[in-house]
Amino acid sequence: METLYIIKIGGNIIDNETSLQSFLQDFAAIEGKKILIHGGGKLATRIATAMGIEQQMVDGRRITDAETLKVVTMVYAGIINKNIVAQLQANDCNAIGLSGADGNVIQSHKRGSHSSIGKAGLDYGFVGDVDAVNHGLLQTLLDKDFSLVLSPITHDGNGQLLNTNADTIAQEVAKACSKLYETVLIYSFEKAGVLLDVEDESSVILNIYPDYYTQLKAEQKIFAGMLPKLDNAFAAIDSGVSKVVIGKAEELQALITGTAGTTITNLPILKTNTGA
Amino acid sequence: METLYIIKIGGNIIDNETSLQSFLQDFAAIEGKKILIHGGGKLATRIATAMGIEQQMVDGRRITDAETLKVVTMVYAGIINKNIVAQLQANDCNAIGLSGADGNVIQSHKRGSHSSIGKAGLDYGFVGDVDAVNHGLLQTLLDKDFSLVLSPITHDGNGQLLNTNADTIAQEVAKACSKLYETVLIYSFEKAGVLLDVEDESSVILNIYPDYYTQLKAEQKIFAGMLPKLDNAFAAIDSGVSKVVIGKAEELQALITGTAGTTITNLPILKTNTGA
Repeated sequence: METLYIIKIGGNIIDNETSLQSFLQDFAAIEGKKILIHGGGKLATRIATAMGIEQQMVDGRRITDAETLKVVTMVYAGIINKNIVAQLQANDCNAIGLSGADGNVIQSHKRGSHSSIGKAGLDYGFVGDVDAVNHGLLQTLLDKDFSLVLSPITHDGNGQLLNTNADTIAQEVAKACSKLYETVLIYSFEKAGVLLDVEDESSVILNIYPDYYTQLKAEQKIFAGMLPKLDNAFAAIDSGVSKVVIGKAEELQALITGTAGTTITNLPILKTNTGA
Repeated sequence: METLYIIKIGGNIIDNETSLQSFLQDFAAIEGKKILIHGGGKLATRIATAMGIEQQMVDGRRITDAETLKVVTMVYAGIINKNIVAQLQANDCNAIGLSGADGNVIQSHKRGSHSSIGKAGLDYGFVGDVDAVNHGLLQTLLDKDFSLVLSPITHDGNGQLLNTNADTIAQEVAKACSKLYETVLIYSFEKAGVLLDVEDESSVILNIYPDYYTQLKAEQKIFAGMLPKLDNAFAAIDSGVSKVVIGKAEELQALITGTAGTTITNLPILKTNTGA
């Protein structure tokens, strides 16, 4: 099977024009099939503030009321998505930007509208939990050598757009595509990878596999905030994704070759220590 | 050749939620291949005002400065495009929304950046004049039975997004597609069609062909504001478009069957007067 890279970038890259340009050059240079999934960054908050829309936060999470949904749709599916696509085009990467509504690529339901209500019955507003990824259109476009840029806006099939977690979209798209391609899922964030010592950027764990993960957890060597990310990574691998890499977007090329970041796999990677 | 309908809707439909819903139901019901091209409506102005961005107007035209470009990208390519797509999905129409940057579908250059400067040397800002429509992606998607929704945001191939006239996009896309399909271009606007008496909505001219157009112009029977639209319509037909229909979006089904609106053709249509 051909390899497909699915790369999620966070707000820290999107907010910095220079970092984003540099990242997009690296992304454009990746040979083969690739999908970029972007979050939002601080622009949505800035636009909402400029428009006088108050942002409700509960437990550090944004509540997506009707006005906020309009803002995130404009910002994520509009200006961020189209600017990324235009910059990729300028780097000779024939990209297409899609939301989950386009071609019904990602259908979701409003959180709490099924039997499962949000935590403690909290209404998160127009937030969507993913029901299905329709990989047919993705495959059609990837096989025509287009690169894809997905914004974290989905729809419920009844005309309602929904704000959706970009990490979740990356995971669900990777699972769906793993039937068709050898799928590598790359999560970029602020740190160089999963760290043994959260204060020491050089303490990156190169490879985590199930037995080692069990051991690391037993020894409480992993920062608690990383556990959901790692649980999700192993869930993706259990669903057919070849490997998950976590690291800095600035090191994209090294994340792909496996020389930077933390690679999560089902079996330990046997590799020579090229750093020695 | 299979028929392709290219339908441009104006701001009057987009601004009215009920009209838009009704129009999208009619659009979804069209059998066969179809492309919807939307303009902006008043939302961009409302958002710009809410954000405290002053709108510069010269001779009734909006000047697209850098801040205004951000707003129209958010509004046209973001919220309007994605809401239309989500509503079409709800009507069982598998739609995909694209800007001109996506898949490099429409490449343009900044007006005045070529030898031809704007009227009287006026700088319209980030406004794009269309250079090329790459119909390959359009054909790929249409032939997979997707319907397409195009926003009037294009790009210059060097990473710059540009605001582009939606009427022009409709015309250029129709010309490019006329090589592949029997292309019918429908412009919807406020009036029931081209009127013999601008005060009388029942005075719609059913069919205009070149000889008759020459005669109507000689007799000064056409409202001056319609002349550019009609000149563009004949230019489209000269480039291979089968026919152009001008009329009300509310009468979409009748515009398609030729029982409402003004149909512009190369030769007179011989039809029985079904209204008698």
